[in-house]
Amino acid sequence: MTIGLLGGGVIGGGWAARFLLNGHDVRLYDPDPKAPRKTEEMLDNARRALGRLTYAPLPAEGTLRLVDSPEEAADGAGFVQESAPERIELKRDLLARASRAAPRDTVIASSTSGLLPSQLQEGMDAPERFTVGHPFNPVYLLPLVEVCGPAHERAAAFYRSVGMHPLVVRREIDGFIADRLLEALWREALWLVNDDVATVEEVDDAIRYGPGLRWSAMGTFLLYRIAGGEAGMRHFMGQFGPALQWPWTKLTDVPEVTEELLEKLERQSDAQANGLSVRELERLRDDCLVDVLQALRGNGVGAGQTLAEYERTLLQPERDPLRWETRVLPEWVDYNGHATESSYLLMTSHAADGLLTAIGIDADYLRDAGSYYTVETHICHLGEANADDRLVVTTQVLGADEKRIHIFVRIARDDTILATVEQMLLHVSDGRAAPARDDVRDRALALVDGEIPDRVGRRIAMPA
Amino acid sequence: MTIGLLGGGVIGGGWAARFLLNGHDVRLYDPDPKAPRKTEEMLDNARRALGRLTYAPLPAEGTLRLVDSPEEAADGAGFVQESAPERIELKRDLLARASRAAPRDTVIASSTSGLLPSQLQEGMDAPERFTVGHPFNPVYLLPLVEVCGPAHERAAAFYRSVGMHPLVVRREIDGFIADRLLEALWREALWLVNDDVATVEEVDDAIRYGPGLRWSAMGTFLLYRIAGGEAGMRHFMGQFGPALQWPWTKLTDVPEVTEELLEKLERQSDAQANGLSVRELERLRDDCLVDVLQALRGNGVGAGQTLAEYERTLLQPERDPLRWETRVLPEWVDYNGHATESSYLLMTSHAADGLLTAIGIDADYLRDAGSYYTVETHICHLGEANADDRLVVTTQVLGADEKRIHIFVRIARDDTILATVEQMLLHVSDGRAAPARDDVRDRALALVDGEIPDRVGRRIAMPA
Repeated sequence: MTIGLLGGGVIGGGWAARFLLNGHDVRLYDPDPKAPRKTEEMLDNARRALGRLTYAPLPAEGTLRLVDSPEEAADGAGFVQESAPERIELKRDLLARASRAAPRDTVIASSTSGLLPSQLQEGMDAPERFTVGHPFNPVYLLPLVEVCGPAHERAAAFYRSVGMHPLVVRREIDGFIADRLLEALWREALWLVNDDVATVEEVDDAIRYGPGLRWSAMGTFLLYRIAGGEAGMRHFMGQFGPALQWPWTKLTDVPEVTEELLEKLERQSDAQANGLSVRELERLRDDCLVDVLQALRGNGVGAGQTLAEYERTLLQPERDPLRWETRVLPEWVDYNGHATESSYLLMTSHAADGLLTAIGIDADYLRDAGSYYTVETHICHLGEANADDRLVVTTQVLGADEKRIHIFVRIARDDTILATVEQMLLHVSDGRAAPARDDVRDRALALVDGEIPDRVGRRIAMPA
Repeated sequence: MTIGLLGGGVIGGGWAARFLLNGHDVRLYDPDPKAPRKTEEMLDNARRALGRLTYAPLPAEGTLRLVDSPEEAADGAGFVQESAPERIELKRDLLARASRAAPRDTVIASSTSGLLPSQLQEGMDAPERFTVGHPFNPVYLLPLVEVCGPAHERAAAFYRSVGMHPLVVRREIDGFIADRLLEALWREALWLVNDDVATVEEVDDAIRYGPGLRWSAMGTFLLYRIAGGEAGMRHFMGQFGPALQWPWTKLTDVPEVTEELLEKLERQSDAQANGLSVRELERLRDDCLVDVLQALRGNGVGAGQTLAEYERTLLQPERDPLRWETRVLPEWVDYNGHATESSYLLMTSHAADGLLTAIGIDADYLRDAGSYYTVETHICHLGEANADDRLVVTTQVLGADEKRIHIFVRIARDDTILATVEQMLLHVSDGRAAPARDDVRDRALALVDGEIPDRVGRRIAMPA
């Protein structure tokens, strides 16, 4: 499909990226001479992000063409998306011009953050194909798009096809839903900085180390329902409702907690929980929090950084290089509850890393002299490990010479060996096999225990 | 250390769990007869969550003892944490009683969400060891704790030792920092429900499918700086400052955007960015978003669910069961940029799953008749795969009989074979080796290509 875009800033460029990477052609109108460069940069970011996001094959990328008028962008387009600055006359003019050039049944959407659809569509030809389609930055990654206006259903279907989550705003209101919430927080945040209570960094940290971690998975209503415990939303309001009268925000006009409001909150909250008990919701919340914290740890950001620093305090530096204890982690487990095949190799890699560290392969050595690489591996599966099992991984050095280390790893639960892994490690320097440094080789030789266990040197074969 | 806890509800129980799992003993005072059960449930949740969060070894769990008075909880304690309901007289009484029983240098902290430290500490012995230590639910997982009061530094050091991120609230203010922001959003959310603009679920979705995904990694100020582009915070305020005057919240009292406020925002925002360019910040934001989305996909929640559904539309259902294309994913890559050893086995598992599906191992078969398990694996590494490489994984069925399938998998980039993986799969039913169903065996036999390639049947050995 060809999509006409009116405006190519942070939002319009983000739309361009999402549409192009989903295989649609894009015709972009933006009078700003910097628009092409900005859109290309946005597209670079989006390619990188979507490449990491999924390994499902994306369709072949669409073609981006810059055009000189809104009419040219809309002419023959299957969908039109306007993302001009929030000035109502400007938006109205663009939408009206596009509506006269686009096919009569083409949906025309506006990215406005909060202007009213009934006002925006004034002056359009066939205003019944107008809708707000309000996305969030970065548009190529965040699924939310608020839809509001006569054509919201058709727009929602299209947005869904490019990976988004349309939220129908049923009643026209300035700022829709999300921006009312965002603005409330933002306005309070500005007061905090204005009044020198906190800096912008302190305000941001107050979110990202705490409540912000929850909001990726659940909104405030469900979170408060959980905090209220088994007694549900009404109980929560009974406990925390009085705080609404306290001077905890600059917002002093707060809703009165009437019986009618209480009843509504309770009914809607029950519907939202959809039969899940507080216990189940707690676990879902915690599972998400754990995985989000781990995601952030990988990026060294905020609460993930806190976790990484905490873990370093837990890890003992000195340990037996030939013995490693671990637990079967949730991400190692398949749908049957068994540790996956690759997790055995992951454990072996950890064990081998411990051995290599012990014989002197440190950061300096890696930079100057090379390292050992696995060239061959033989795994025998003798039993199954399950989620949360405590395992002991022991390494026996069967042999070593100037270039090789031959190891045999046993993975056991209590006295039961669940798998054995035999490996040949080869010393590589500058991309080719080469002798290890003498001290490293000597330390490897000193660890050799030549008593050959069962299952060493096996080959795979069908029975005769 | 022994920690005295006053109050064992959602917050106090969360503290108990965090402290116990960090090896501290806890003495808990709570007159509620349900407190022991609630605390045990919280502790169950926390054990499960922390077990998933890290595989670093946690210290041996501390001991929980329920006591009958605040004095007993505080007597001899190395730290005291009060988490009673938000009634100032109640809190004051508990804090004063604890202060008379605790050692004179023991820090006494209150979990209050927003009452003023200067008022809470009235009546305490040695009030200079008082501080607010305001955590967030679930306390055993979320790192944020706001500290405010004379003993905030000593408390911060202790909170850090149990994995938390203390945020110093430098100026005493009702609601501190986080709850002012939370309350602003919450009050606006209540208005939306009260006025029938949206249901509680729609309000929650407006956060968790969009802005909430960003807030786990970055706060509003940094996000808006990024959205403002290269021109920085002042430019952003120039563009979006006028919206502060629009009726986008019930909060009508908004700060005036004076030159002084602008200058302050710009200076603090520059300090926060800490030399990172907008481009770098964008990538950091996107990397976090990608990983957070993947974390949520694993839990089937919100935006992760949207991603999973989108991916299903991208995947073609019919494909060659003996051929699979993939990309080297970021999580498969080690610090050198090479695919890890275990990732080769992960690719092999995917390939084998495709084969098993093709010969008829479906959900019904798994339930009624068993499946094939890998009993032996032999890997030869011939080259290295790097991040983002496109790989083709092909499977050759070398042989099959009633119980076994012998396969040989090649992992190649273009025409270069990077690794071969030979596997013996054994049919298992009710926990023991057993013949496959005839149709499954026949389909496996039909796929046999007996031309034996190099490297089949190898054994590992040091050179003679």
